Amino acid sequence: MSANPIQTGQFSSAERDAVYKCIFNRRDVRGQFLPDPIPDEVLARILTASHYAPSVGFMQPWDFIVVREQNTRRRVWEAFQTANREAAEMFDDERRSTYRALKLEGILEAPVGICITCDRKRGGPVVIGRTHQGEMDLYSAVCAVQNLWLAARAENIGVGWVSILRHRDLRAALDIPSNIQPIAYLCVGYVSHFFVRPELEAAGWLPRMPLREVLWFDRWHNQSGSEALLGHIG
Amino acid sequence: MSANPIQTGQFSSAERDAVYKCIFNRRDVRGQFLPDPIPDEVLARILTASHYAPSVGFMQPWDFIVVREQNTRRRVWEAFQTANREAAEMFDDERRSTYRALKLEGILEAPVGICITCDRKRGGPVVIGRTHQGEMDLYSAVCAVQNLWLAARAENIGVGWVSILRHRDLRAALDIPSNIQPIAYLCVGYVSHFFVRPELEAAGWLPRMPLREVLWFDRWHNQSGSEALLGHIG
Repeated sequence: MSANPIQTGQFSSAERDAVYKCIFNRRDVRGQFLPDPIPDEVLARILTASHYAPSVGFMQPWDFIVVREQNTRRRVWEAFQTANREAAEMFDDERRSTYRALKLEGILEAPVGICITCDRKRGGPVVIGRTHQGEMDLYSAVCAVQNLWLAARAENIGVGWVSILRHRDLRAALDIPSNIQPIAYLCVGYVSHFFVRPELEAAGWLPRMPLREVLWFDRWHNQSGSEALLGHIG
Repeated sequence: MSANPIQTGQFSSAERDAVYKCIFNRRDVRGQFLPDPIPDEVLARILTASHYAPSVGFMQPWDFIVVREQNTRRRVWEAFQTANREAAEMFDDERRSTYRALKLEGILEAPVGICITCDRKRGGPVVIGRTHQGEMDLYSAVCAVQNLWLAARAENIGVGWVSILRHRDLRAALDIPSNIQPIAYLCVGYVSHFFVRPELEAAGWLPRMPLREVLWFDRWHNQSGSEALLGHIG
């Protein structure tokens, strides 16, 4: 296909290791944001990386809203406060006090918020790959979130995904029309440090599951014939 | 927090560039798979990278089914065939023949399939961060897909996401119980080459959208005050 030249694009072991370093050191950041501004060229790079996510039928259903105004972030934070109070009430007595002690967002501390949305009508009435799995447009936008998160980590920038929010409050704060689906509100900024482990794991909320407990071969809950591969799993 | 030591984990510019190389050179692979087996230690690494995706409330809702049996992949391929015939009928006359000429999956050629699922009950009745956005468990599993995709690319392995499938057929082929939600069926294998551009873009199906057409500041469809950042966007 002359319109699509072949590229070998081989990765060296050093390049491969950098990608794994990024994946294993990515954290959901809540409490370590610094006020340092993110240079425009850095922000442009991580947004471009997000825009190069895979999308079903190449529909690229996302929009990005970069939130820098303090007043706007305060409206998002107020929506979080409301939802978080409600959320605490949903836990049983034992976990409620633990929940309340957790720092779960950095909306006001992070200098930048980024909202990623999904336009479910983009690409017309029939989209390749979405004919039998209608949710694929939403999933494409989630891939854009993960690309942004990893690109930011490689820029030594922290990202935290705030999901303790009502969509209608987020829509109101950012003037998002009713036909557009919010996917993620991300707090983005430089950080004092990254933790070695996810905060909920370190706090004893839940352990990291052993991979071998969720890994099957050829059919659900089958592990026979896969001893060699399992031997390489930590 | 002594249970969670601080790690600086700074990325060098070479490491950062490797992450961007991975993000920009990832492709949805359909037609370039080689039969070469994937070594167990390599497969273990990309599965581990997937398992280290972010998850809401650290619920880690995913399971992985590694599909290597030819008969099982054939059942998945048959499900694709059925869905793809139906899909072609949904396009108007003009696009139908173009659609039919597209190679959209490599289920039988790729030596490995990986199905990623979501257990929506994992983590108990109340999950941190899922109290107001119930879809966050599904989105976590999608982040695991994207981690796997990028890790595979860094291993010079191609991945293609096949979404032209009915969930019920995929469940039947892989014995997935009814309480488990399939998220993605991925074709995974070494490839003869990676294309420079996404195949649907190269085929003229849809163009890459300019990022500046989907990038807003502080509120939907606002670009005022952001000229400096837009100057860095290609």
